[in-house]
Formats: sequence, C-alpha cells, structure tokens
Amino acid sequence: MAGKGAARAVVLLSGGLDSATCLAAARRDGCACHCVSFDYGQRHRCELTAARRVARALGAASHRTIRVDLRAIGGSALTDDAIAVPKDRTARAMGAGVPVTYVPARNLIFLSLAAGLAEVVGARRLYIGVNAVDYSGYPDCREPFVRAFERAANLGTRAGTEGGERLRVVAPLVRLGKAEIVRLGAGLGVDFGLTVSCYDPDRSGRACGHCDACVLRRRGFEAAGVPDPTRYRRGGGR
Amino acid sequence: MAGKGAARAVVLLSGGLDSATCLAAARRDGCACHCVSFDYGQRHRCELTAARRVARALGAASHRTIRVDLRAIGGSALTDDAIAVPKDRTARAMGAGVPVTYVPARNLIFLSLAAGLAEVVGARRLYIGVNAVDYSGYPDCREPFVRAFERAANLGTRAGTEGGERLRVVAPLVRLGKAEIVRLGAGLGVDFGLTVSCYDPDRSGRACGHCDACVLRRRGFEAAGVPDPTRYRRGGGR
Repeated sequence: MAGKGAARAVVLLSGGLDSATCLAAARRDGCACHCVSFDYGQRHRCELTAARRVARALGAASHRTIRVDLRAIGGSALTDDAIAVPKDRTARAMGAGVPVTYVPARNLIFLSLAAGLAEVVGARRLYIGVNAVDYSGYPDCREPFVRAFERAANLGTRAGTEGGERLRVVAPLVRLGKAEIVRLGAGLGVDFGLTVSCYDPDRSGRACGHCDACVLRRRGFEAAGVPDPTRYRRGGGR
Repeated sequence: MAGKGAARAVVLLSGGLDSATCLAAARRDGCACHCVSFDYGQRHRCELTAARRVARALGAASHRTIRVDLRAIGGSALTDDAIAVPKDRTARAMGAGVPVTYVPARNLIFLSLAAGLAEVVGARRLYIGVNAVDYSGYPDCREPFVRAFERAANLGTRAGTEGGERLRVVAPLVRLGKAEIVRLGAGLGVDFGLTVSCYDPDRSGRACGHCDACVLRRRGFEAAGVPDPTRYRRGGGR
C-alpha cells in the first residue's frame, strides 16, 4: 500500500486491460495513484464505468473523468459514427498502416491533460499503459513519442520554470506483448473481469469479440494461459 | 486572399489581441485558416464570442469551438472561482514567477487538440500567438516549449508514421513585445475593437481594466501610439 509519504502519480485509466495493468504496476511501485479517465465522445463509453470499478479495486487515491469533446475533431471510427469499426482483421492487416480506430493525437491530448492534473495534485510521475509490440499501428504508443512528450511537458509547465523535480512519464508496458501484459496484470492481482477493451460493445458492456481490441485481447489470454473472463455478446465468444 | 491551392493552417484563436494578430499573420502568409477556440470553463467565456467575430472578420476558412473541461483540473484563477484574478500589479510583480492566472498545461493541451484537428483537416501548420517578451511568467509561451511540442506532435501523430510533410508550429509573435504586436496587427488590418483580452470582464464583455491582461494591453496601445478601442467598464478606463 502507498503510505503517506508515497510518491504521487497520475495514472491514465481507460478501463481496458492495459491501463488496469499499468495502474497495478504504479501501485506496485509504491505510488499514491490519482487516476484520470476521459469522456471524449468515444462509442465505447461504457469503458468509463469499467475505469471507475478498476480504480476502486486497485486502491486508487482518487479518480476523475475529464470531458473533452473529440467528436468536434472526428476522423476516427471511435468518435465518428459514420466510420465503421473494422472486424475480424488478420494480424497482417492490423500491422499495415494507421488503422481507422486511431483517434487523431489522442495520447498527446490525454497526456497533456494528465500533465495539467499532475501540476495540481503535486504528482511528478505520469503512468500510461501504451505498448507497441503487438500493434504498432498507433504512432502515439511508441517510446520515442513518450520521451518527446516528456520533454515538451517539462518545458511547458511549472516544472520548466520553477525548477524542482522533473515530470517523468512512466510506460511500464511499452516493451511488452499482450500475453506478457496479461501475465503481469494477473501476477499483480488485476481482476480482468472488471475491464472493457472492446471498441464496439453493446449497451450492457458485452464485447463484440471481433474488433482489433477484442482479437488482440483474446489472443493475449490464450497465449498467457490465463482464463479469459471477458463477457462476450452472442456471436462474440468462441 | 488564400486561394484554392493555399497551405492549410490550424490557428489557435482565443479572441484576444495576440491570437487575432496571429490569425492575420497566417492570412498574410497565404494560409487557408481553420481556426479553433476552446470552451474550457474559463471565467472570461465571452472571449469565445469575440473569437467568432474575429474569425469572420479576418476571412477564416472555418472556425470551431472545442469543449474541454479544465475546471475538472482547476488550479488557476481562470478556471476556479475561488481564486481571485490579481489586479493592478506592477510590471515587477508580473515578472516574478508563475502567476495564478496560469492554467496548468493549457498551451500543451490546446496545441495537442489543434494537432489532432490538423490531421483531420489536412493542415501541416499550427499557428499560435504566444509571446514571452512582456510577460515571461507563463512557461508555455516560450520558444523552447513550442519547438519541443512540435517534435512530440510529429512523433505522436500520423506524420510520424506515414512520412509526408512534417507538422510545423508557427509562433509569429514569440519575439515581439505588446506594442510591436499592436503595430503588426494594426498594419495587417486587425480590428482590435472585436477582441477581448480581459481575464475578468463583465457579462457584456467590457474589460475590467486592472487585471494583468488589461494592463499589458493598455500599455501596448499606448506604446504603439495606436488608439485603444477597448470597451472598459466603469472604473476600468483611464
């Protein structure tokens, strides 16, 4: 448990498998975790309920949801209902180029908001669960981006003016594949049954089983040899 | 006028004197300007109406307002009603440290959202009216931050994956003092009567005349020898 003198961290928490494991890693590192989720107009808005459950289960110090209207920007299957979420894509198709589920500049935007929150809660660490091993199509999930962001954030906030401890961005999953993430999370006591990864769930939060996020998640459980607790809707399971 | 083949730019437009001049500079540079304003819970929300007027007057190709709830973060006199806007500060007091009107990570957040929009509208330039000469208290108004952001944005968006033209952040005012900005804007035909700079205006948009923004703006007009068209409320003018 993070004690009174624990380092404070802001943890980006989407409610999915990766960010839940990231939060568990931040707790393992002894941090008092101030979690932040984003209500950005995503079609899989039920992930926000999942994020609340995960924050509570993993002993977060606080959890807040910030509204930022990325539908005003659009350009993604996740924020524009006119663009369909691709289903049943092969690994090869997933690896080819930036997918339509990429939300323009999303991690740049979310990390920026998290950097603002970090200033207010007095945190000098930002935890983000990006990883690029299985799914390299998202430019904002790679380590060079994370390091460049860290530099910009230090120059553009109080840290850059008033000295003191620099802001560090910690990406504990960045070099892990999905199966390794599942094993890490399971070892840290994450209840994956609380998480929602699907891009296109039904109203009660059951996963479609066919979008890229579902396909990668299912394969991760299989490869890790960990039982998959995901609630699939009819036709979504195996 | 920007023709059909004009370079597209996203211009951050607050509705104040600086961003209006920045938009005029982007138009002078031949850009088709897609302006973006942010409804972030600022107490001087009437600047959004000013931004619409300015975009129209200066021939913007489009203008949109994105909602992002920075009140959920707080930590600034501009987003927390419990923190008062300082009045009648001396130049020396303004120069000492980060003022309470600093909104944590604001330009980092706004530039990130603008970078997302740039991807969608196909713009490779972001114009921002930051300047640090008269008022160096804001860490996110300085050139090293702007360049570091540019690098992060290129690594964290499609530009970083798919090649093509890099995103450039253009800050035409960054080395200008307020009087030089007033002269530049006046020369480019900006109607400063449309703009609102005050942090604490009344409901009809009349300026307080005493906050840092008002003090710097008034001095800028005086030093430039340009008539000040600002509507001050009772006790706000000279």
